[in-house]
Amino acid sequence: MVNKIFFFLVIIGVPLSVAGSLLHWSQILMFGVYCLTIVSLAAYMGRATESLAVISGPRIGGLLNATFGNAVELIISIFALREGLIEIVLASLTGSVLGNLLLVAGLSFFVGGLKFKRQKFNVYDARHNSGLLMFGVIVAFVIPEVFSMDMSDAEAISLSTGISIILIVLYLAALFFKLVTHRGVYQHVSNQEGSDAGGKHVHEEPEWSRKKAMIVLALSTAAVAYVSESLVHTFETVGDTFGWSELFIGVIIVAIVGNAAEHASAIIMAYKNKMDVAVEIAVGSTLQVAMFVAPLLVLISLFFPVQMPLVFTLPELVTMVTAVLLMIVISNDGETNWFEGATLLAAYLIMGIGFYLL
Amino acid sequence: MVNKIFFFLVIIGVPLSVAGSLLHWSQILMFGVYCLTIVSLAAYMGRATESLAVISGPRIGGLLNATFGNAVELIISIFALREGLIEIVLASLTGSVLGNLLLVAGLSFFVGGLKFKRQKFNVYDARHNSGLLMFGVIVAFVIPEVFSMDMSDAEAISLSTGISIILIVLYLAALFFKLVTHRGVYQHVSNQEGSDAGGKHVHEEPEWSRKKAMIVLALSTAAVAYVSESLVHTFETVGDTFGWSELFIGVIIVAIVGNAAEHASAIIMAYKNKMDVAVEIAVGSTLQVAMFVAPLLVLISLFFPVQMPLVFTLPELVTMVTAVLLMIVISNDGETNWFEGATLLAAYLIMGIGFYLL
Amino acid sequence: MVNKIFFFLVIIGVPLSVAGSLLHWSQILMFGVYCLTIVSLAAYMGRATESLAVISGPRIGGLLNATFGNAVELIISIFALREGLIEIVLASLTGSVLGNLLLVAGLSFFVGGLKFKRQKFNVYDARHNSGLLMFGVIVAFVIPEVFSMDMSDAEAISLSTGISIILIVLYLAALFFKLVTHRGVYQHVSNQEGSDAGGKHVHEEPEWSRKKAMIVLALSTAAVAYVSESLVHTFETVGDTFGWSELFIGVIIVAIVGNAAEHASAIIMAYKNKMDVAVEIAVGSTLQVAMFVAPLLVLISLFFPVQMPLVFTLPELVTMVTAVLLMIVISNDGETNWFEGATLLAAYLIMGIGFYLL
Repeated sequence: MVNKIFFFLVIIGVPLSVAGSLLHWSQILMFGVYCLTIVSLAAYMGRATESLAVISGPRIGGLLNATFGNAVELIISIFALREGLIEIVLASLTGSVLGNLLLVAGLSFFVGGLKFKRQKFNVYDARHNSGLLMFGVIVAFVIPEVFSMDMSDAEAISLSTGISIILIVLYLAALFFKLVTHRGVYQHVSNQEGSDAGGKHVHEEPEWSRKKAMIVLALSTAAVAYVSESLVHTFETVGDTFGWSELFIGVIIVAIVGNAAEHASAIIMAYKNKMDVAVEIAVGSTLQVAMFVAPLLVLISLFFPVQMPLVFTLPELVTMVTAVLLMIVISNDGETNWFEGATLLAAYLIMGIGFYLL
Repeated sequence: MVNKIFFFLVIIGVPLSVAGSLLHWSQILMFGVYCLTIVSLAAYMGRATESLAVISGPRIGGLLNATFGNAVELIISIFALREGLIEIVLASLTGSVLGNLLLVAGLSFFVGGLKFKRQKFNVYDARHNSGLLMFGVIVAFVIPEVFSMDMSDAEAISLSTGISIILIVLYLAALFFKLVTHRGVYQHVSNQEGSDAGGKHVHEEPEWSRKKAMIVLALSTAAVAYVSESLVHTFETVGDTFGWSELFIGVIIVAIVGNAAEHASAIIMAYKNKMDVAVEIAVGSTLQVAMFVAPLLVLISLFFPVQMPLVFTLPELVTMVTAVLLMIVISNDGETNWFEGATLLAAYLIMGIGFYLL
Repeated sequence: MVNKIFFFLVIIGVPLSVAGSLLHWSQILMFGVYCLTIVSLAAYMGRATESLAVISGPRIGGLLNATFGNAVELIISIFALREGLIEIVLASLTGSVLGNLLLVAGLSFFVGGLKFKRQKFNVYDARHNSGLLMFGVIVAFVIPEVFSMDMSDAEAISLSTGISIILIVLYLAALFFKLVTHRGVYQHVSNQEGSDAGGKHVHEEPEWSRKKAMIVLALSTAAVAYVSESLVHTFETVGDTFGWSELFIGVIIVAIVGNAAEHASAIIMAYKNKMDVAVEIAVGSTLQVAMFVAPLLVLISLFFPVQMPLVFTLPELVTMVTAVLLMIVISNDGETNWFEGATLLAAYLIMGIGFYLL
């Protein structure tokens, strides 16, 4: 059903996007078309990546997910960086962190909690993720913010570059830890919760063959790249028309568009009581943005005219820090319920109002 | 014994308060009279509420406690708001949070810990409370502080209003979670600790009949309202005389007066090794102030000439945030001892010195 | 082996230090000589303290460790204070906290984790330490920072004095808790991990007799004092030559020199899978610096011309706060692995780059 809708949207959306950008149709209209097209293309990228991951086994699959999981966001951001729209890029990174951590996880916990009184997930993963969230968001984002106050721009870029390299290295080390040295070491807890969670990867069949998946991935990535570039050019008009600030567009709109596919699958997993997967999508995606996409964009920006330091605005930083602290406290026991989901959603709502009014 | 003292204080205090405010006696003297009278009236309100809660069962009882638990504070604050004394209201809210979280809990843990080597309470409640503290104090108070820096006053009021509504809704959702959907779900841990904690509500008898309780509640609430209004008018003189800042009066003095009854009962519960109740009073009361009283006052202030945004001073905010973090780390294991109590008291002392010197 | 190297270094280093400071040799050269001499003298102080601790039993031994454990740092700092070098003292305190919490613990977890997949330590100690870290660093250091913004210098000194007294009293209370009232209360968990950890103090023999240990302690303390004074005078030249700021010298160089002996023994303990001891050295030393050395220096500075408030620079404070939060999240489960060590080291690296560029 959902797949059919996305198929329909892609078939209609891609030609419309091409036509609209060539024929200079209303930017407000095209903004909507671009957003829907990207959401549906992202769904194809997700399915292709998933198939390749199943075929390649968990190690290469993990790397593939790490690379293509936030590919849409990465592509949109590179086009925005090339235009020098640093504020929008930082805002959309913030939006991704907040969206995954509060909106995706919040909806998953809430919807899952409406069906099940108590839902459990691997408590070791929760603690491992807490440490990474604390490192990737709080240590690595707060320090350049504070230190750059007393620095020249060149020093701030040096610091950001150093931090970015460390973030990416530690992110790869985390994959190595999870997929190689400590694969299965912390698994027995999951097994106690039911054989379903423990054996979830054993019988999995890829949706598509390797060849089909690679073709779909290549085509949809190219299409996303094309549409994303067009999308970036509509921001100014859209902001002026609706009275939205660049910050609000970046934090809320781009983030929701870029992560829509993940939102859907996390909630479906929670509804099936597969909380390990739902949490992995929400928190794993946050970590990917904070420890891989963001630092990669900093490094890529070194080759563009305007360099991007890893320095967020104070509202962006404070919302990410409080979101991380809230998630750590809520997830650290390896259990969720509807009220914990509601708490995360309430936090997202507060931040959304704040960014809207800013 | 204690009840007799409060009876005596009410019998003497209320007429003295009326006489003093009509005859314009020394404001310093009357400040003391008002404080003692309010403390003893609060004890009556507490007993009446408790009786009604026992009679009405836990659901309505929880709501009653939620409404009347911080009624004194609410009444004093409304009178102060009407006078435009926003700084004092925010300071007294801060003082309530700090007083409950550090002084009440600290004394309870310390006094209980002198008698018992290790005291336990429901670890699920501890985690639930940690999430709410993180949300109610850190997310909901830090965000308006930071965002309002770049906002007009009108926008700051809009943001505060939005956050206040979300806080109250989530507070009610928390009651619904605790009293309806998840009532008893997390109870088995308490049961393991001894049948006393598990069955603590079963054999309880109300102290007063429904009729007597309602009359006492109505009369003492009216009396508190009357005395509170007089109390607010003495702040300026008292501050000038003793060299206390409005901040110190609000954070330390008003908070202790407004919460004296709760302090006493929490410590008595800890001494009886009923840590579940002691923690519920201390942390529950903090959450009530942060998620119900504070936002309600913001909403009420919309009808007064001077509106109150949910924006504390930086020292107020930082003390609340650090107090919450300290409490979360200390309480998260569901165990206490005298040293944890001493740590909380030491934190209160540091903050008290800070506000005194400010 | 290591002991022989230190013996050699002391035999060579002390005469060279005396000669160099009298004959005004190159300050850059002498900086290196002084550092190596202090490191090796510190090893002797450590062994003497350890022998005395074994002879005196755990209570007096704990007090001895508390007093002499950071004696080198204390002595260097007193000389720097006398010279009015407040910035360097605060920087070296920061460096001690960061070095112990991130570098020592990070290396221990990492090196130990290369040999053992999962290493455990007493989870009760971890939680006890978390509470103290939260109090000693976050409450006690953040509050004077924020409050002193709105205070006169005299008020800031009053606040710092008050906080310092409270910190020392609570530190002594923590020793009393650990060594007297709750000695062995939380031990059973350790016992489950193996009889080695549980009985680790039972069969221990002192390395030296009481007399020899006291003589070594007295001589090495005197020598450290002499060399430290010379070391402080080289900072300016060294900073100018290498382009290092006073902040970088204080935070990174002095901290590594002052704590080198501890670094070595923590890592050796981790490699032997004695994680209880490794964590005790790393976190215990942090707490000693934050709750005993730092406040003691504030109190000592009251007798010097320039008084030192407990007010760090913002970068110093933020690095300490984030380091504490990271350590709490990582250590709270009583387990470590190589990746947790790598995370701590990555955080240290980020902060080192920051201080270097500042």
